This record gives sequence, C-alpha cells and structure tokens, in this order.
Amino acid sequence: MTICFADVQRAKDRIQSQVHRTPVMTCATLDRMTGARLYLKCENFQKVGAFKFRGASNAVLSLTEEAAAKGVCTHSSGNHAQALALAARLRGIPAYIVMPRNAPAVKAAAVQDYGGQITWCEPTQRAREETLDRVAQETGAVQIHPYNNEQVIAGAGTAALELLEELPQLQDILPPVGGGGLSSGTCLAAHGLDPRIRVMPCEPASADDAYRSLASGTIQPSLHPDTIADGLRTSLGSLTFPILSHHAERILTVSEEGILRAMRLLWERAKLVVEPSGCVPLAAVLEHAALFAGRQVGLILSGGNVDLDHLPWLLKN
Amino acid sequence: MTICFADVQRAKDRIQSQVHRTPVMTCATLDRMTGARLYLKCENFQKVGAFKFRGASNAVLSLTEEAAAKGVCTHSSGNHAQALALAARLRGIPAYIVMPRNAPAVKAAAVQDYGGQITWCEPTQRAREETLDRVAQETGAVQIHPYNNEQVIAGAGTAALELLEELPQLQDILPPVGGGGLSSGTCLAAHGLDPRIRVMPCEPASADDAYRSLASGTIQPSLHPDTIADGLRTSLGSLTFPILSHHAERILTVSEEGILRAMRLLWERAKLVVEPSGCVPLAAVLEHAALFAGRQVGLILSGGNVDLDHLPWLLKN
Repeated sequence: MTICFADVQRAKDRIQSQVHRTPVMTCATLDRMTGARLYLKCENFQKVGAFKFRGASNAVLSLTEEAAAKGVCTHSSGNHAQALALAARLRGIPAYIVMPRNAPAVKAAAVQDYGGQITWCEPTQRAREETLDRVAQETGAVQIHPYNNEQVIAGAGTAALELLEELPQLQDILPPVGGGGLSSGTCLAAHGLDPRIRVMPCEPASADDAYRSLASGTIQPSLHPDTIADGLRTSLGSLTFPILSHHAERILTVSEEGILRAMRLLWERAKLVVEPSGCVPLAAVLEHAALFAGRQVGLILSGGNVDLDHLPWLLKN
Repeated sequence: MTICFADVQRAKDRIQSQVHRTPVMTCATLDRMTGARLYLKCENFQKVGAFKFRGASNAVLSLTEEAAAKGVCTHSSGNHAQALALAARLRGIPAYIVMPRNAPAVKAAAVQDYGGQITWCEPTQRAREETLDRVAQETGAVQIHPYNNEQVIAGAGTAALELLEELPQLQDILPPVGGGGLSSGTCLAAHGLDPRIRVMPCEPASADDAYRSLASGTIQPSLHPDTIADGLRTSLGSLTFPILSHHAERILTVSEEGILRAMRLLWERAKLVVEPSGCVPLAAVLEHAALFAGRQVGLILSGGNVDLDHLPWLLKN
C-alpha cells in the first residue's frame, strides 16, 4: 500500500483553508424508517457541488512550484473536471480538461466558468486518453486522474475524517463506490482512527464491478453499466482495488428502484438536493436494513449536481 | 402593541428543546450574483419542513394544563396544520384540523401521520370558519390561528432571533410575508436586538396585499392572488398589520419569473430544497439588487415542502 492514514491527515491540513467543512445532518423520519441512527455528511454542499473538490485540491496543492507551473490536466465530463478547474484557478495555474464532444453543454460551461480550458475529443475511452496524452505533452501539464491518484484518494478521505472527528462513536460508514477514490480514502480515514468501523462501499447492482472485483480477487471491468447513478459507472483502479480489498467489510449493491426511492426521500424529507450517486448509501441502508438495526451509521452524500429539467422520477421510459 | 421582544425571548426558552436550531448557510455563487453577503436561515430543515412549527409549538406550550387538556384546533390545508398536529402530539393532547375537501391527499396524510384528527368541510372561507367554530364548541379545543395569534407570532420570531445571535452584524433581514406572522416575529426579534436593522418583508407582486396595506394605512384584502408562492396568498391580520406598519422598512414585491429563478438557484447552486414561498426573499435581493450592494443580509428560507412531481419549472401553462 502506497498511501496511509497520515496522508489523509496531511491532506486535511493542506486543503482545509479552501474546502468547505460540510455540515452533518440528521433526519428523524429517515431514522424511523431505517431503524438506524443516520448521520448525513453533506458533500453536496462542497464547492463545485461534490466531494471531488477535496481530492483535486489536495492533488493541486501537493505539486511543487516547479511541477505546478505548467498546470494540470485530466479527461472528465463530470464533477472532477469542475473540481480540478477550480482547484487550479485557486492556485493560479492553468487547467486543461479533455471532454468528449457529446458531453452536456452545461458541464462544459461550468468548467469554463471555473477557468478550465477545454479540448474536445471523440467520445471513446481511447480518444480521451490519447487526447489527454497529447495535451499533457504539448503543455507540460501534470495529469491528475479522477480517482487512481494517491493525492486524490487522500483528499477524498478528508470527508470521512471530518465526520469521525465530530462523531467518533460511528460504527459504520457507507460511501458510494465508482472508481473507488472516495471509498479508498474513507477506508484509510476510518481505520486510521478505529479499525472496528465497518466501511461498506455501495454501488448499483447494475454496475456491480466493485462487488465482482472483491469477490473474484481481481479488478473486474464495469460492463454496460445501466444506472441512473452516473457517477458510479467506472471501474476500480490499480490503487483503489487493493485498498478496498484490504479494508472494505463488504460491498453493498442496490436496485435502481432503491436509488430512486432514496433520492426522493432525501429531497422530500431531508430537503437536500443530492445527485443519484450520492443517494446510493441511503438506498443500501433501506435495502439491507438488518445490517444496520440500532447502529450509528455515517452516509457520505457525495454530491448534488443534477439536471432539474430531467429528474429521474419524471422520465418516461 | 400587545407583544414585544421579551415574548420572542420567552418563546425561544419555551420551545428550544423541541424545535431544531436550523443551520445558516452561505453560497459564494449567490453572493457573487447579488453583490451582497447572504446568510440563509434554513427553516426548510425545521420539523415538519417549515418555520410554522416554531409558532405552533409556542402556542401549544403556552397553554395552561387546564386549557390544553381538551386539545387545540385550527383550519388549514398547509404547513400550519402539520405543525399544530405535531406540537399537540408532543404535548400529548389532541389536535383537530379542519381541512377543505379539495386539499391534496398528501397534506391530509401528513396531518394524520402526526396524529391530527381531520374534519372535512366545503372549500370556502365561510365553511372553514363555521366548521372550526363547531369543532371548537364540540370538543372544547383552543383555536390556534395560523398567524393572527400572539404566541404564534412570538414563536415565528425565534428564527430571526437565532440568526441574529449567530450573526449580530446583519444589516438587513428579509422574511416572506403572507399573513404576516413570520414577518411580525422577525420585526420584534430584530428591533429588540438592534433597531437599525432593516426588516423588509417580501411578497409576490401578484399577491401584493401587504404592500398595498402599508401604503394605504389599512388592511387590504388579498384579491385573486395568482402566484406559485402558495403560502403567501393570505391577507394581513389585526395583530400583524400594526407590527409591520411600525417596524417594516418597506415591503418588497417580486415577479413570478423572479421567484422561479430564485428557486432554481437555491436548488441548483445552494443544493437546498426550498418551497416557492421560501424563495421570495432571494428573488427580492435579485430584483432589488441596488438596495443590498455590499450589505450583510439575512434571508429566511421559510420552508421546503414541495410536490416533486409538479415542480413549477416543469409546468406546461
């Protein structure tokens, strides 16, 4: 293992002046429905609307002056792109973002609002990677992977670190898992403080590559993921897989119906705008209720970036 | 004037063990857009999803044992009905709620969930009042008006009291105004602490009875209010009108378009589920920006109860 609890602590010191210490909310209705005591770590209130800003900030601030001078780059059409653009702007360095041509215009506009410079590419994994390599070569910018990067993982872990500093009695922590950056950081933070805490990353059953990976002992690709939790469609990486294999109690999978139900509950009862991926941990508590009866459980609501004109419960299939 | 700052202070002591001390949020995007420094008092996170629980709690807890024994009653199809039902249940007394037959089933179900006993009536003001009088006579329950009630006003004022205790530097406070309970309580709280604070109640231009009432010096009825801010369609009362006349700097009116824009901003950028009425203060800052440039402004986001299947930006007119 190349990163450890101390990296998460150092990340916290490094980024705390520029990230929000997000609030922890509770909701009596959800507690009554689940039979557990739930603590909601609200990363939907984080800058750029998602926990991704923690990892991007830590990665950017960890660079030496010399390495940082030529900027940073990544390929992403999601929250990581905005997060990296803002983190770079705050350090006063350029951010080059490779985006597929079919990315929503609103996402590109958000990246540009944060000062990111976009290079368009064809919407294939190969085109994205090749374009990014070219951009990195031409500009000299440092590539910052959205999750398979030590500083990104350590930064993501600061959400759980804050949560456990406030609530050391927590018995379980549930982050959503896509590429595994948030889950890995959560594992390091939690077990650095208390190895008895059960960390249970949660993912859609229709994108259950993390479940299959841990069950089989090797990284399994995310094949044809068909889920409304669009942040969780990626596969684990070479850094995140071993951390999860070592630390995760188990991977919990949830139905699409369960994600939708959890999302409506968070909006209607907790009054929180949370994106589908961020609702997956609550869906897991609802669908695996016996695991959590009477326990104190932290849920990481990973982000709140949604298209209000296309809410999933209004889609006609 | 029959109530004063001390009543708000007493209300706070009386209810604080059973109401949420709601968080105050900030949003860099909204500050940048408005040129002001905005502090959002999140009553959407209050129990029953609205500030109404403060007034109902104070009214119920202010009753003597003898007066309380036979319960409380009101006519309402909105947040006050749920608030009174829950406040009564917490004191262990019955709540009788008169509702018009055309009230949404979901509202009735919520009242019943809190233990309220519903009596249905025809959907006219006269039928509501007559039915309520009959219920009060038959049961001996005490009538608790949704806003024209001293204890309800004092309780509503505790939101501003909490806000100003945390942020004594605030220069302006903007509550929405319908019947005037929240606005009146806000006036008493703010001017009890600092008479220089400008309290500017906000309402839809298409339900501008408070504006017309203060301009003309007598209570003007709310005629044919046509607004998405369904909590602000009522007229001022005999208790709230004189308080607002004395304390309010002015009444700000906003367009329907402005309410919709403010609502989308609060959901998309602040990640808060706020009902249309609660978005009216932000709409006022956006539409009257010159009044607030460079100032520290508290906005009372009064509630978060919305029908997610019928969001106003998705309505086809």
